[in-house]
Amino acid sequence: MNNLYLGIDLGGTTVKFGVVDNTGNIKEQWNIPTNIEDHGSHILPDMINSIKNRLPKYKEQGDQILGIGMGTPGSVDPYKGTVTGAYNLNWTEEQLLKEEFETNFKIPFFIENDANVAALGERWVGAGENENDVVFVTIGTGIGGGIIANGKLVRGVAGSGGEIGHIVVKPDGDACTCGSRGCLETIASASGIAKVGKVIAKKHLDSELYKASKEDNFDAKIVFDLAKSGDQAAIEAVEDVTYYLAWGLGQVADILNPQYIVIGGGVSAAGNFLLDYINNFFPNFVFPNVKKSTSLRLAQLGNDAGILGAASLVRENLKEL
Amino acid sequence: MNNLYLGIDLGGTTVKFGVVDNTGNIKEQWNIPTNIEDHGSHILPDMINSIKNRLPKYKEQGDQILGIGMGTPGSVDPYKGTVTGAYNLNWTEEQLLKEEFETNFKIPFFIENDANVAALGERWVGAGENENDVVFVTIGTGIGGGIIANGKLVRGVAGSGGEIGHIVVKPDGDACTCGSRGCLETIASASGIAKVGKVIAKKHLDSELYKASKEDNFDAKIVFDLAKSGDQAAIEAVEDVTYYLAWGLGQVADILNPQYIVIGGGVSAAGNFLLDYINNFFPNFVFPNVKKSTSLRLAQLGNDAGILGAASLVRENLKEL
Repeated sequence: MNNLYLGIDLGGTTVKFGVVDNTGNIKEQWNIPTNIEDHGSHILPDMINSIKNRLPKYKEQGDQILGIGMGTPGSVDPYKGTVTGAYNLNWTEEQLLKEEFETNFKIPFFIENDANVAALGERWVGAGENENDVVFVTIGTGIGGGIIANGKLVRGVAGSGGEIGHIVVKPDGDACTCGSRGCLETIASASGIAKVGKVIAKKHLDSELYKASKEDNFDAKIVFDLAKSGDQAAIEAVEDVTYYLAWGLGQVADILNPQYIVIGGGVSAAGNFLLDYINNFFPNFVFPNVKKSTSLRLAQLGNDAGILGAASLVRENLKEL
Repeated sequence: MNNLYLGIDLGGTTVKFGVVDNTGNIKEQWNIPTNIEDHGSHILPDMINSIKNRLPKYKEQGDQILGIGMGTPGSVDPYKGTVTGAYNLNWTEEQLLKEEFETNFKIPFFIENDANVAALGERWVGAGENENDVVFVTIGTGIGGGIIANGKLVRGVAGSGGEIGHIVVKPDGDACTCGSRGCLETIASASGIAKVGKVIAKKHLDSELYKASKEDNFDAKIVFDLAKSGDQAAIEAVEDVTYYLAWGLGQVADILNPQYIVIGGGVSAAGNFLLDYINNFFPNFVFPNVKKSTSLRLAQLGNDAGILGAASLVRENLKEL
């Protein structure tokens, strides 16, 4: 008989499910498509049905699912167990997830925003090595973050703890979707990197970067690939982006002095090449004792961070009950 | 019979003691001079003797002192209860404070750095209103900080959590004592403000600020006083300083989303005049949801923050035992 957790990673195109044991092994995982039609009204019943089909097996084996955890986009109330304003799911109205899940499965349900959940996953069984002070930053379409201090998520008073993408690093920079100017996200997210790449390309008309920047498929990955192949203009773009990333992460480091700042998300696929550039600038922006004690790392869990983090969310909450 | 805490605020010129009850009332307080002669070797025995003279009274009354807390300069190991490198006390060698206090008084002893202790005090019975998410920033000779998240101090992995003074806000700015350039402390500490004042004064040779900047006693207080009296050059200096303060505190707010950021230390004597200028710039640097939920406040405890915070340190630690 095993004690297990069910982790759910709810995304705009796919819902991922994983049954996870107490050491972070995924015993089984499966996906269903996210049906966002009809104001996203199918999503919740689809998830519940999918779980209903899978759980009897564990009961028969004598295993016990101790609780269900979920990472979700949108604005989460973890106490009420609700989500509002998850626009990529077409969820505009408040969704009573905890109520529905607990009514159906009679086990505890816990929910957090997806960046916080990924942070819990990387902290538990990924690059965070289960340390008590770990920051996770995810660099993709946007830049998100999740902070663990003293072993606990730092949500802040209104759930905006970890808004690392909206640290202002260039007050005279481009307008951000949030209303400020020069947020880290405007420079170092995937779209920010492509934009920086285009601006720098125009100064180097004979570069590979300039040629690539004229194509419709131009993106952050191309900027990194060209930099890796030695294109000077692309290297200049990577330097520009990683300078601001190092600055923003340096501020996080001085404020929290975590053991690790773990870098994940699509852009982190650039791997050690990205990490080395950030590490090159990072020491200029941090306090000596932080320089010695806080280090930057690449995320390790990839697409499994969500379900593992959701399982960790259950595990951490049950510890406290 | 009352349960009481003994709080000690160890400073370079004075040691402050306070006997504090469970609601944060100071029942008695007294000071002794800090004798830093002979490598600071008198400080510890002086403190112990001073306490020994005062405690019998409480025993006679039937009150119980549950523990002793201390805020100190230098680098603290709160687990071992030791301090090293407190240069303004002439303490260069490791000081075994916990061991000495517990041997002498047979009650638990807890120690933290002074910025963290002041943060605990302001959080408990000052501007922090006993909320779970409070940041304290002290603006004096330097800029220090203490962070409380989820009701607990965030020390970080090597005790450098809350190094708010060393957030870089101007990478091409002046060199800081820490080795970086353009730390918030180089611009917005008391000496930083005087320096900014001098630079701006030179652009306004007919200003009161320029006249004052030629005198030996020129300092941050004079910059603020002249700004309050309407001197345009001084107002420009205050705008420059508070712009960077708002930027730095905006980064703290986006990362932690605390209920309050409490501003204390000598410079905070400039009061609402200072606060209004910071609040003027602050919204440009924070995420919308943080703008709605995190607010800036002036500290309320003044010189008592240290002893009240030291009492709070005991109280918080005993809760967990």
